[in-house]
Amino acid sequence: MPKITLTRLDAASADFNGQLDRLLAWNESEDLSVHQRVLEIITEVRIQGDQALVDYTNRFDRRTVNDAAELELSQDQLKAAFEAVPEAQAKALQTAAERIRAYAEHQKIASWSYTEADGTVLGQKITPLDRVGLYVPGGKAAYPSSVLMNAIPAKVAGVPELIMVVPAPKGELNQLVLAAAYIAGVDRVFTIGGAQAVAALAYGTETVPPVAKIVGPGNIYVATAKKLVFGQVGIDMIAGPSEILIICDGKTDPDWIAMDLFSQAEHDENAQAILISDDQSFLDAVDRSINKLLPEMERAEIIQASLTGRGALIRVENLRQAAEVANRIAPEHLELSVADPEALCEQIRHAGAIFLGRHTAEALGDYCAGPNHVLPTSGTARFSSPLGVYDFQKRTSLINCSPEGSSELGKTASILARGEGLTAHARSAEYRIKTD
Amino acid sequence: MPKITLTRLDAASADFNGQLDRLLAWNESEDLSVHQRVLEIITEVRIQGDQALVDYTNRFDRRTVNDAAELELSQDQLKAAFEAVPEAQAKALQTAAERIRAYAEHQKIASWSYTEADGTVLGQKITPLDRVGLYVPGGKAAYPSSVLMNAIPAKVAGVPELIMVVPAPKGELNQLVLAAAYIAGVDRVFTIGGAQAVAALAYGTETVPPVAKIVGPGNIYVATAKKLVFGQVGIDMIAGPSEILIICDGKTDPDWIAMDLFSQAEHDENAQAILISDDQSFLDAVDRSINKLLPEMERAEIIQASLTGRGALIRVENLRQAAEVANRIAPEHLELSVADPEALCEQIRHAGAIFLGRHTAEALGDYCAGPNHVLPTSGTARFSSPLGVYDFQKRTSLINCSPEGSSELGKTASILARGEGLTAHARSAEYRIKTD
Repeated sequence: MPKITLTRLDAASADFNGQLDRLLAWNESEDLSVHQRVLEIITEVRIQGDQALVDYTNRFDRRTVNDAAELELSQDQLKAAFEAVPEAQAKALQTAAERIRAYAEHQKIASWSYTEADGTVLGQKITPLDRVGLYVPGGKAAYPSSVLMNAIPAKVAGVPELIMVVPAPKGELNQLVLAAAYIAGVDRVFTIGGAQAVAALAYGTETVPPVAKIVGPGNIYVATAKKLVFGQVGIDMIAGPSEILIICDGKTDPDWIAMDLFSQAEHDENAQAILISDDQSFLDAVDRSINKLLPEMERAEIIQASLTGRGALIRVENLRQAAEVANRIAPEHLELSVADPEALCEQIRHAGAIFLGRHTAEALGDYCAGPNHVLPTSGTARFSSPLGVYDFQKRTSLINCSPEGSSELGKTASILARGEGLTAHARSAEYRIKTD
Repeated sequence: MPKITLTRLDAASADFNGQLDRLLAWNESEDLSVHQRVLEIITEVRIQGDQALVDYTNRFDRRTVNDAAELELSQDQLKAAFEAVPEAQAKALQTAAERIRAYAEHQKIASWSYTEADGTVLGQKITPLDRVGLYVPGGKAAYPSSVLMNAIPAKVAGVPELIMVVPAPKGELNQLVLAAAYIAGVDRVFTIGGAQAVAALAYGTETVPPVAKIVGPGNIYVATAKKLVFGQVGIDMIAGPSEILIICDGKTDPDWIAMDLFSQAEHDENAQAILISDDQSFLDAVDRSINKLLPEMERAEIIQASLTGRGALIRVENLRQAAEVANRIAPEHLELSVADPEALCEQIRHAGAIFLGRHTAEALGDYCAGPNHVLPTSGTARFSSPLGVYDFQKRTSLINCSPEGSSELGKTASILARGEGLTAHARSAEYRIKTD
């Protein structure tokens, strides 16, 4: 295996910000032919319903389904999948599910209200979404952990009906994915995928009920379909390649740091793994560990492509500067592998998830620490948040004016409405002003 | 003025759901030439910065600006605008601002964490966005109330820098809008508008700093630009036409209900105002009030177009059925003009804001009740929420494993990672398992 040469940057160099911007640059190229094809599929499913769903599924997934009813799995099938899982894996899935659920319980938002002196009541009422769709990719990218991470917050939010879709290419299904669906409490499962599954969830067919929101990862067809049905239904974020940024003070075992970088890089060639340190000799040591450990890795080629193309070792003057660079990157995952991670954490404003201390490997968060592994990528942590229970709840404002309250508010509203030239607004408010 | 004939529906009719769907149907037609034009403007502003901003502003707003610095208003100018406002209006704006702020304070989300038995700490850290852009339309659609509703939640969230953009066609500005910006604590104001203003906020120019999120209403160019820069920055919802749904038991003054319908219909021809009642004679009475009051209205033509084209009077069997219809519509504004609004409210799952009781005119909520008037439209209340403080805050997950915690979690993560074929994940976790 040839030596990996990682990009080296120094925060002290004059053009550092420009170099960093180029390193981070990621433009998902919009493919108009994909857009057009997906639009056709959505239209067909809206018009033809089940028949289109069966036809596309037979064509794209090489199946021989006659009736849409055959696309649904029974709860007995999910249970059987769970019971067939080797005990150690079953136990690990259950442990992960319990921890994800315990953490999610802390995220529930509750209705609130307050009463003013004149009896007017103001507040917000929180309700779960009626029905949610969970997209799960088929084939090699089928991750049971992803089922747990997407499904459990929805159930904790109180979503009464959670519909999972997962393609079954040539009829094959990942039994661990079905076991995870069983553990997470998924209500119904349809073996459909691609843009046709997204369209069915958004608009409903005779067999698949329409949902209020669609979450879960997928390929370019799925992502494009989600963008196109947005507005008809809610969607979660459209994720870019996965990223890790590690800040290390040079005192962690360089093999640990190298492996933490690998754990991100092995996802795909576009994944981004970056290490920042104030210790030049440590950066060199990690470089050596990377080259030492790489030949042992099963996914060595993917790791090599990712680290060579998008990885970097960045030297900074001190940890304060490291925090500044991290805030500029706003990484999906941020490891603070330093002596006082809490102090450094105080300086971080933007990250999807922060892993504090040398023992907190990012991989623990991917599976079972509890927090969600669906996180904002590509710098979007500057304005968005991890997937959580709150994504499956919504708010409705409540206004209940007493006669006295509406009389007083009516005077203010009348003045402002007339200032905006909206006289029906003004007169509607004025009707409620007491004249006696 | 010719008689208004409103669509009449009866929930008991066989095809009611189909008729309702057709009444609600709203498709914002995508204009590809607008899309293309906006894309060009964004590209120019990204490449040319201030120069493009000045050129577009001079061209589209018929101004004669030489230097981008001329586009910024000073805090003194905002203060002067506020001081020039007639006292009654200034007081009304301040009252509204205080109530919006008081309500917003209840919405702040706070950081939280918990410690497990082995010392592992899990939680979420809440941070405000660094910098937010607020778009305010110019000309006749310039609403000071909209400035308050968008700006105050951002400041309550703790956003350090709030940048407002508002076009000044031929140099003209609405002084009430500037006064509202002064009251709301807007930090900087640029007199720019259209797609060029959105592009400047998203990418920054030499003069306009880049923001993390852009909120506020705008025309088709602004809405298209917001969609196109989404991902680079966060955006709020893209609003459809405004809607009101009123459920009345027939005991409210029909003139009040007619005026409440008008207050929505006067916004624009596409606004939708619907009344549901279980009392046929009351529907007739409101119909008469509508025709009686319409000639008195300043915006009678808009109201007539809106009510004729998209309004409706719907008869239901009872209030339970009214709630079912409301949940199907998921209206932006819902008035419960009934004897026991709290009981009926219990049955409502989907609405942007609910106005309880005969005295709670929707117009009060538009200006000064406290809750935000930026609400989900076009049925999106099924999955989304009013604008609030939470839209200007974001969450970062925190994971701080003790050595014991990471050792235990490492075992679970290792099993699950190997089940997914991700061996770098497994080995990264395994390094943290205690072997002594």
